[in-house]
Amino acid sequence: MIQARTLPGMMELLPEDQIIFNEMKDAIEGVFQNHGFFPLDTPAMENLEILTAKGGGETSKQIYEIKGSKRDIGLRFDLTVPLAKYVALYFSDLEFPFRRYHIGKVYRGERNQKGRYREFYQCDIDIIGHNKLSLYNDGEVASVMADIFKELQLDYRFHYNNRKLLNGFFESLGISRFTETLRIIDKLAKIGRDKVTEELLELGLEEGPIQRILDFIAIDGSNDEILERLKNLGIEDGGYVEGLHELEKVYRIMTELGVPKERIHIDLSITRGLDYYTGTVLETFLKDHENLGSICSGGRYDDLAGNYTKQKLPGVGLSIGLTRLFFLLQEENLLPKTAEKKISAMVLPMKGFEDQGIEILKKLRDAGKIVICHTESGKIGKKFQFADRMNIPYVIVIGEDEIKSGRFSLRDMETGDQEQLSLDKIIEKL
Amino acid sequence: MIQARTLPGMMELLPEDQIIFNEMKDAIEGVFQNHGFFPLDTPAMENLEILTAKGGGETSKQIYEIKGSKRDIGLRFDLTVPLAKYVALYFSDLEFPFRRYHIGKVYRGERNQKGRYREFYQCDIDIIGHNKLSLYNDGEVASVMADIFKELQLDYRFHYNNRKLLNGFFESLGISRFTETLRIIDKLAKIGRDKVTEELLELGLEEGPIQRILDFIAIDGSNDEILERLKNLGIEDGGYVEGLHELEKVYRIMTELGVPKERIHIDLSITRGLDYYTGTVLETFLKDHENLGSICSGGRYDDLAGNYTKQKLPGVGLSIGLTRLFFLLQEENLLPKTAEKKISAMVLPMKGFEDQGIEILKKLRDAGKIVICHTESGKIGKKFQFADRMNIPYVIVIGEDEIKSGRFSLRDMETGDQEQLSLDKIIEKL
Repeated sequence: MIQARTLPGMMELLPEDQIIFNEMKDAIEGVFQNHGFFPLDTPAMENLEILTAKGGGETSKQIYEIKGSKRDIGLRFDLTVPLAKYVALYFSDLEFPFRRYHIGKVYRGERNQKGRYREFYQCDIDIIGHNKLSLYNDGEVASVMADIFKELQLDYRFHYNNRKLLNGFFESLGISRFTETLRIIDKLAKIGRDKVTEELLELGLEEGPIQRILDFIAIDGSNDEILERLKNLGIEDGGYVEGLHELEKVYRIMTELGVPKERIHIDLSITRGLDYYTGTVLETFLKDHENLGSICSGGRYDDLAGNYTKQKLPGVGLSIGLTRLFFLLQEENLLPKTAEKKISAMVLPMKGFEDQGIEILKKLRDAGKIVICHTESGKIGKKFQFADRMNIPYVIVIGEDEIKSGRFSLRDMETGDQEQLSLDKIIEKL
Repeated sequence: MIQARTLPGMMELLPEDQIIFNEMKDAIEGVFQNHGFFPLDTPAMENLEILTAKGGGETSKQIYEIKGSKRDIGLRFDLTVPLAKYVALYFSDLEFPFRRYHIGKVYRGERNQKGRYREFYQCDIDIIGHNKLSLYNDGEVASVMADIFKELQLDYRFHYNNRKLLNGFFESLGISRFTETLRIIDKLAKIGRDKVTEELLELGLEEGPIQRILDFIAIDGSNDEILERLKNLGIEDGGYVEGLHELEKVYRIMTELGVPKERIHIDLSITRGLDYYTGTVLETFLKDHENLGSICSGGRYDDLAGNYTKQKLPGVGLSIGLTRLFFLLQEENLLPKTAEKKISAMVLPMKGFEDQGIEILKKLRDAGKIVICHTESGKIGKKFQFADRMNIPYVIVIGEDEIKSGRFSLRDMETGDQEQLSLDKIIEKL
């Protein structure tokens, strides 16, 4: 006998939780579709050279590789690399701007720890342009995610910034190592001000500029106040001016597309450590649960697929880490409690009346009801218990009397009340 | 630069095909849910010892294994083994009969050939009992699949048989090596009568019994005629009698649950080569495309999880190979042509009127329409061409005149007609 067990770091749910998980997934997909995004579904396996094209990075060290194949094959660690490959491969078949969503599992051989998964769902939307892509798209993807969080009834807040603005600011301080600086700043919430200062000193920055950076990213207030203060700094660096224009414009577009102002927080400490972002960057936190980390992140990039094609493909995208979000919500008792596709009744034929039970089952199903029929032998008490444990609200008993009279016993499992009703009345009631 | 390519044997679709594929998948899932099945979604990776517990077999040779992990890990090759593990692992949390559906990707390192995939979707339903499970469930799972094929508008036919009947018949001939005999007979359609005879001779059967087997599995006629002939053979072997009773009863239940009689064909040559089936066996063929092979198969088994638990868990299940089915239908031009969640209009603001375009977009979306807004710079002709190629039926032009008058140009992309309409009228029209 082999012990039944599931690998650590993998999500596996009991049916009632799986239903809620799937409803969240379906809600997300519905919003994506209603905003005119197309579905993609690429393979979980890719050529390893595709997956590692960007090189370096924590994530590519976590790739699961396949044994003993003629080719070097790995499992995807995100949905962006497969998108880049896809767009490069099918470039001439696609229309740009190309709007796609992708909800799928990704794999990372992470150290096993709380809140980290080795297999997890990502829910991505991206809009990819050919050569150019207007800033309206940055606002669009954020507004789609806002609609999702509204539907999931989450108390969210976008923390929103612009990389050009940050880089322009660094430039104005004479700092050239943008990416490294950004990566260190990105860790501020995790490692604190002192450790960030230390790492920036190690990188070669001087104390004056470091202090100015820390003051800059701490600028706070209402969004309008922050924008005003950023203007009043009088920085004339081209990147800074452009970044500030983008920050303000995308903020305005988000609100025009219905994202409530109070759901957006311009947060100059948000950098998204990954080096491919070039403009808008965004993270999403749950109010009063900011410590849980970002539940939806992404931004603007200038060149999606430069590793695979000469075509210049700028884009903007956001991604929800659904598996992690689900467990966070479960832990905090914040899971939505809807279950539309539930069983509404169980037909329970007495011994010898199974065929009549099946007949009633068929009629109820033809009337659009979600119904099952209990046809196993055994004690009737256990069968009612089964219905009770399955949270089935009604049981319809079928026996000799019922068949003769054409009226069936409908038991309300909540109250225990039992009524004799015609099938039409039962259909009405369910 | 790395060449963008997708691994052979993996499904990857262009957006318009992906939409159809997803609609088929959603239709299948909807029918599963409407019949009171619960969703499961287990990890793609499992401990290798779980995957190989059954031992031997072609399929377990095709397992993709993961490199360099502390544990021996493989990718699942079907959804039945993960179900067995799941039911054994969570036995005490589940209610029986346990009705689950699972739509997910499975992986097989097959030789790359037409119609074979290395990653493909299976859509499974199973009903698992504890210690016993009534025959009504055999009819139930078949009727669910029938509802799916009806919804997908497929001209299908169930080829249906019973293992007990076959084994009982072999027993009556003095043949004891049931499984090997079944495996050889299972190849009849592929390798022909002569080769089957040859292999049965090699197995040690004599010519007389082989002839009788071949005659038996060739019994044809209407279902009622076949049942009559099987009764008239006068075989008194206990297994045969029981198998015949099951064959007849499940046939009747299927029809009671709405499967049209002409969609069911009792076919005594159907054996399902895998040795774990113990009663009902079923395959599904598309009319006039029987050469494409079975698109939905399965049956009754006595002991789902004997490798992982002492609990006796009999069950019955059927599985659609969706990826293969999709490509078969595509090849034969039989794909359903519905696309509900399509973009119904594109808002096209003139230069400088993007914000007004966004405003109209927002209003149309609030009215429940699936609409996008084209905010890129460029020639207007190219933008109409984009809408045309995307099969978007209407374009709403927003410019100075439109904003002043409050009436917008709605172009019908099919006819080229252009009307000036208020927003309310446009919403009505879409």
